[in-house]
Amino acid sequence: MTTTENRPLTQNWPDAPTTSEGWIARAANVATLLAVDAVERDKGIAAPVHEVQLLKDSGLVTLLGPAEHGGGGQDWPTAYQVIRTVSTADGSIGQLLGYHLLWFWAARLVGTPEQIQAVEEAATTNRWFFGGAVNPRDNDVQVTEEGDQIVFTGEKSFSTGSRVSDVTVLEGALPDGQHVFAIVPSDTPGLSFHDDWDNIGQRQTESGSVSIDHVRVNWSDAAGFVDKKFQPRVYNTLNVPTIQLVFVNFYLGIARGALDQAASYSRDKTRAWLHSGFDKAIDEPYIIDIYGDLTAKLWSVEALADTVALEGKSIHDNAWNVTEQERGEHEVRVAAVKARATEVALEVTSTIFEALGARATASKYGFDRFWRNVRTHTLHDPVAYKRREVGRWVLTDELPEPTWYS
Amino acid sequence: MTTTENRPLTQNWPDAPTTSEGWIARAANVATLLAVDAVERDKGIAAPVHEVQLLKDSGLVTLLGPAEHGGGGQDWPTAYQVIRTVSTADGSIGQLLGYHLLWFWAARLVGTPEQIQAVEEAATTNRWFFGGAVNPRDNDVQVTEEGDQIVFTGEKSFSTGSRVSDVTVLEGALPDGQHVFAIVPSDTPGLSFHDDWDNIGQRQTESGSVSIDHVRVNWSDAAGFVDKKFQPRVYNTLNVPTIQLVFVNFYLGIARGALDQAASYSRDKTRAWLHSGFDKAIDEPYIIDIYGDLTAKLWSVEALADTVALEGKSIHDNAWNVTEQERGEHEVRVAAVKARATEVALEVTSTIFEALGARATASKYGFDRFWRNVRTHTLHDPVAYKRREVGRWVLTDELPEPTWYS
Amino acid sequence: MTTTENRPLTQNWPDAPTTSEGWIARAANVATLLAVDAVERDKGIAAPVHEVQLLKDSGLVTLLGPAEHGGGGQDWPTAYQVIRTVSTADGSIGQLLGYHLLWFWAARLVGTPEQIQAVEEAATTNRWFFGGAVNPRDNDVQVTEEGDQIVFTGEKSFSTGSRVSDVTVLEGALPDGQHVFAIVPSDTPGLSFHDDWDNIGQRQTESGSVSIDHVRVNWSDAAGFVDKKFQPRVYNTLNVPTIQLVFVNFYLGIARGALDQAASYSRDKTRAWLHSGFDKAIDEPYIIDIYGDLTAKLWSVEALADTVALEGKSIHDNAWNVTEQERGEHEVRVAAVKARATEVALEVTSTIFEALGARATASKYGFDRFWRNVRTHTLHDPVAYKRREVGRWVLTDELPEPTWYS
Amino acid sequence: MTTTENRPLTQNWPDAPTTSEGWIARAANVATLLAVDAVERDKGIAAPVHEVQLLKDSGLVTLLGPAEHGGGGQDWPTAYQVIRTVSTADGSIGQLLGYHLLWFWAARLVGTPEQIQAVEEAATTNRWFFGGAVNPRDNDVQVTEEGDQIVFTGEKSFSTGSRVSDVTVLEGALPDGQHVFAIVPSDTPGLSFHDDWDNIGQRQTESGSVSIDHVRVNWSDAAGFVDKKFQPRVYNTLNVPTIQLVFVNFYLGIARGALDQAASYSRDKTRAWLHSGFDKAIDEPYIIDIYGDLTAKLWSVEALADTVALEGKSIHDNAWNVTEQERGEHEVRVAAVKARATEVALEVTSTIFEALGARATASKYGFDRFWRNVRTHTLHDPVAYKRREVGRWVLTDELPEPTWYS
Repeated sequence: MTTTENRPLTQNWPDAPTTSEGWIARAANVATLLAVDAVERDKGIAAPVHEVQLLKDSGLVTLLGPAEHGGGGQDWPTAYQVIRTVSTADGSIGQLLGYHLLWFWAARLVGTPEQIQAVEEAATTNRWFFGGAVNPRDNDVQVTEEGDQIVFTGEKSFSTGSRVSDVTVLEGALPDGQHVFAIVPSDTPGLSFHDDWDNIGQRQTESGSVSIDHVRVNWSDAAGFVDKKFQPRVYNTLNVPTIQLVFVNFYLGIARGALDQAASYSRDKTRAWLHSGFDKAIDEPYIIDIYGDLTAKLWSVEALADTVALEGKSIHDNAWNVTEQERGEHEVRVAAVKARATEVALEVTSTIFEALGARATASKYGFDRFWRNVRTHTLHDPVAYKRREVGRWVLTDELPEPTWYS
Repeated sequence: MTTTENRPLTQNWPDAPTTSEGWIARAANVATLLAVDAVERDKGIAAPVHEVQLLKDSGLVTLLGPAEHGGGGQDWPTAYQVIRTVSTADGSIGQLLGYHLLWFWAARLVGTPEQIQAVEEAATTNRWFFGGAVNPRDNDVQVTEEGDQIVFTGEKSFSTGSRVSDVTVLEGALPDGQHVFAIVPSDTPGLSFHDDWDNIGQRQTESGSVSIDHVRVNWSDAAGFVDKKFQPRVYNTLNVPTIQLVFVNFYLGIARGALDQAASYSRDKTRAWLHSGFDKAIDEPYIIDIYGDLTAKLWSVEALADTVALEGKSIHDNAWNVTEQERGEHEVRVAAVKARATEVALEVTSTIFEALGARATASKYGFDRFWRNVRTHTLHDPVAYKRREVGRWVLTDELPEPTWYS
Repeated sequence: MTTTENRPLTQNWPDAPTTSEGWIARAANVATLLAVDAVERDKGIAAPVHEVQLLKDSGLVTLLGPAEHGGGGQDWPTAYQVIRTVSTADGSIGQLLGYHLLWFWAARLVGTPEQIQAVEEAATTNRWFFGGAVNPRDNDVQVTEEGDQIVFTGEKSFSTGSRVSDVTVLEGALPDGQHVFAIVPSDTPGLSFHDDWDNIGQRQTESGSVSIDHVRVNWSDAAGFVDKKFQPRVYNTLNVPTIQLVFVNFYLGIARGALDQAASYSRDKTRAWLHSGFDKAIDEPYIIDIYGDLTAKLWSVEALADTVALEGKSIHDNAWNVTEQERGEHEVRVAAVKARATEVALEVTSTIFEALGARATASKYGFDRFWRNVRTHTLHDPVAYKRREVGRWVLTDELPEPTWYS
Repeated sequence: MTTTENRPLTQNWPDAPTTSEGWIARAANVATLLAVDAVERDKGIAAPVHEVQLLKDSGLVTLLGPAEHGGGGQDWPTAYQVIRTVSTADGSIGQLLGYHLLWFWAARLVGTPEQIQAVEEAATTNRWFFGGAVNPRDNDVQVTEEGDQIVFTGEKSFSTGSRVSDVTVLEGALPDGQHVFAIVPSDTPGLSFHDDWDNIGQRQTESGSVSIDHVRVNWSDAAGFVDKKFQPRVYNTLNVPTIQLVFVNFYLGIARGALDQAASYSRDKTRAWLHSGFDKAIDEPYIIDIYGDLTAKLWSVEALADTVALEGKSIHDNAWNVTEQERGEHEVRVAAVKARATEVALEVTSTIFEALGARATASKYGFDRFWRNVRTHTLHDPVAYKRREVGRWVLTDELPEPTWYS
């Protein structure tokens, strides 16, 4: 495991912002730093040690943390914008930040009030970076009970961020099938993160597999358990919409980054076609049309993403009283924006090339990484089932059932 | 000129709403009434006399009028929603209402403060329905001066709504090329509205041609003229964005109407395909997918339309101080949503048939009118030039120049 | 039932062509005559009495008939081209001709050798125009036996061409479920063709419903029955591929007609956009692009249609020995071209408007009929199931089962 | 410059085929061998020394060579199929073969009869592999005269295949602007091929830059020059259509390879989605639909490519008498298939992932190489100008002017 060389990612950051706009501006500063060698980082698969440190130094890791403990005290709509902004420069780091914020926030999903308070304070104060070994499609982490403790053993195929994390969220199943979550230090003996994430996109997300060999956790740290019984709360049903909006926002950030960097290249480097009759490529009608078309499409999805984020906020703000109907209709809206974000991000990241020209395929420009990044993560769950959720609701008012996953 | 038979479009309306939500609900009530025989009306080309009366009775014609004179006192974002809602039932009436509101509001574009006040009071108090003989692509209405009066003579190819209007906005050019606008009673001698609007869509909009034969207007009624000199004001530059957002919103309303009525038909009438293995059409995966996909696309454009309407509101609210940059960037955003609304409305209105089945092509259902309506009006100005506005701005920061038209 | 007025559709035709090229040229002549008032005919729903006479006079109705009896002696690839060519001018007449040729040829599907010979001779000599009351999705024509005769009674929802036909193919089910087909004179007492085809497209196809009230047929005229037993033959499995290629070819003809007439209008009537910087619309890049794009798409499907027609010919030529595998793979190819012809014909007929401009929406030009025609018939069976046939074959080598319908 | 390790690409090939079908089958055998480690080869950028040897050993390099000298004696339609077939396994090797065949055949474009005969004999007998330093968009190779010789000096940005070639086609401009071509041994002193092709796709094509430093050629070897004067021949106008059809065919081969390998993966490895209700992914409707849709689209373009290849053959067969009209209309057809091949190949290679699932993004499967390969080469010249060629011809009968390039 090599790390990226020491680049000037560190800097003395001014005081933490106090407004949403301030945090988004901070994310833009982080993006500028990340952009410098994003192409280079994409080629190797070095662990993003320095990049995670940047997320800590800039305060983005505690964006959702309580202000009283030094956190940003922001809400999800702001967090989505921050994730989107970071992703314009580097989709992997945007995903890492997004997943981190999800795990950070996950305590609220399933924890008891005491656990929530404790986790948020510790995570904020210590600027923990979270990883997760949670992918519930694998059903192969068993949890057994040994006195006051529970013991996790098994394998997870994907564990985004874990190798560069301070703490890891574990997930497993008790003998009775009940799912149980717990946060453990990432250097806990028994946790082995494998350096086997070598995929065509989102290459720096450290989404490799993990082995969990008799990792012990106190019953009192099992999230949401009181007297060894899980106290189900309505709030956990916000899991899927929130996760999916995180996805949407790093897709949109990647697409935005692709479009902006393409426009810059078209202006500076693309040569007018020899039969075009124009001196500059940016005067060629087909190039103008491509940018107009892709921008209009991207703006539409961004607008829907922002609108749905606000709809979600009113649900988050009222999480303990949200009705099944409200929750379900929100998930349908999220499913719709997930579908469109996927489609438009793929179209943008593939089509920009036609406005760039042949020389832009040189590896040094790395323009293919945008498509590879989008193409990779948008397969997390089949987008066809998102359209299905929407279509069923339109036709029959059927609401999607809450699940842990997608 | 026949009129539609006397249907129960009249009713005793409760007091006028006082909130945006109230007005949108009122528009929904109007839409319900209009839906009853919208298919029938589309076939003939009867003048929409009763429908215009409905718009008056329900108060929608004075939606933008000052509350002190009995108007709704609403802003454009609400007006767009009202237009969209009416258009779900009948695209023609939605367009008539939209154009009316534009002419109603146009006094503010070019009038002097005194003219604005006078027109708004008279139009609100009398519930004038406005038509326009304005299409500035025709350059063939001449204005000459005769003492205290000016005289309009010429032809306009299109004059939406005029045949059913109370007043008509005239436009022409003075000998020095200066454009001049004035409001005249629609029954002014010299104005002849021709019954020659027979197009494939928006068939009830009464968009036929008009002859203007020596129509006299006092200089004092020439909008914006003081001492026979036009006092140009920045505000008129909001012309195009506002018009184009009106267009966008009746396109979106038509598409929404198409999708809703299609879903209703799929639920009630579409038979499962004989080789499908399903009992009900709405369980067939391809039908679910169509509704999911089209809904997601329509929601995206609706979200952008709403977002851009709000952006526009802050410009309208600050109309006299808006900068060229703010105005230009707003028009670029409007151009983008125009492009997407066009594309998505066409896709929705053509694709729904695949979820309906062959029997839905019976003329009695009139499902083709949605596509014909969208197809007809979206040619008002070529959508390719909207993408061009966006693309040029992306590539070179070029702002579209304000024009009178598009 | 009114008929179109007497137009100069009649002419003295020279001797019948003897080559494929000659027949396609003849079809082009017929198309030229049909084009004169195709827009007018689309508006009313007059019975196409004169148009059917034109098909007879020109010899197209006997295109597939044996040369020894005065028929054209041509094969299906030529017939598809003829159908396509006629459809460029009038999709309804193209469909009528296509269905006629199918019924004409249907004797070969299920008849005994003696029946085939007798039908082909009679149909060719008398220039019968065929209609059909066959749509097997309705399961409601019962056939009972009375001595040497069978008796048909029931209803069919759709019976293309029957009102203007000389003979009609009946279809019904015997008590044991066996399907039985027979040809009867269309003026047989007991056959009532209802004037109830009023759909948004293919308006002159006379596809209304039919009542069948105790129509008697000799057992000896029941197609393919010998001693009251149906002798199944492999050949009947060519039913669906042949029908579907007929559909494909009139879709392609309609699309070709739309594109050609649009190009003509763009050249002669479309005005350059006022902000375009061009004098002529046909120099505007977006208009050139539309024609380039649509032409490339249409050529691709035409090429596949022609290729698959030739593949089909080798199967038709060897019809009695064709294997299940050969037959199935051919149907998969047909399914693919059906899917693409549907999609491209819809795209062409909707998109041309963007190259025409707003004035082209005047009803007198009738440019919407192309889309309405394609939209109507392409719902005959859901195109999603054609893609399914192809997809299943790709994934699992599954062959579509032969059916009577689609 | 490393080379790929010694893999069993060599084998004892049976006698050369004598039919078109035989050669296509041979190409399929070559493809099978190339497929073994195509993913591995894509990652590094080793020179394809062994792969070129395979093309020689199998006889594909002399496919167009005269049979009397041991060549295949085949025509372009067969060559296109061979290129397409090889490209299913490896787009780079398909491109190398395609370019080689172009240079091999280029003697006929511009050579004198004696030169043609001499080149074809030498190239066939010696199984020369051709590279080219010809890209005429660079205008920077100067040719000067020194007695009986001409001297080439300058740089070319791209020279596909040269590093692994036996001979190289040089192109430069004489002082009077006349272009001149000549074939030289690739190890001629003064020719330096740079190892600088590091692009995102078609990575093994060795398309790096070349420096040409005083490379001398006898005047008698200057293609088509007699007594130092170029004797223009009509035949050279076939340059662009032939080149572009070579491009089309390796795009189609890459797309076919992508689709076939995806289908294989879907069958063997893709897991049914956990909410799908199916046991096997290949029973999920959306997956079936993807394969059905993409296959139908690809078949359409394949059919057009084959049709246009046959149209081209009749022109090649009559090359010295072809009219400007025939040549121009053929190029328009080629432009259309180029446009569609580009669009469909991009769609296929991006969309397959949705039928594969997330685990298929592992780098070891290399599924992204198909898209990267298509994306890279389809930028050779802007596809928008191909649509423009078609559109202009449709609207104004304008024929594209013959050029050396695109």
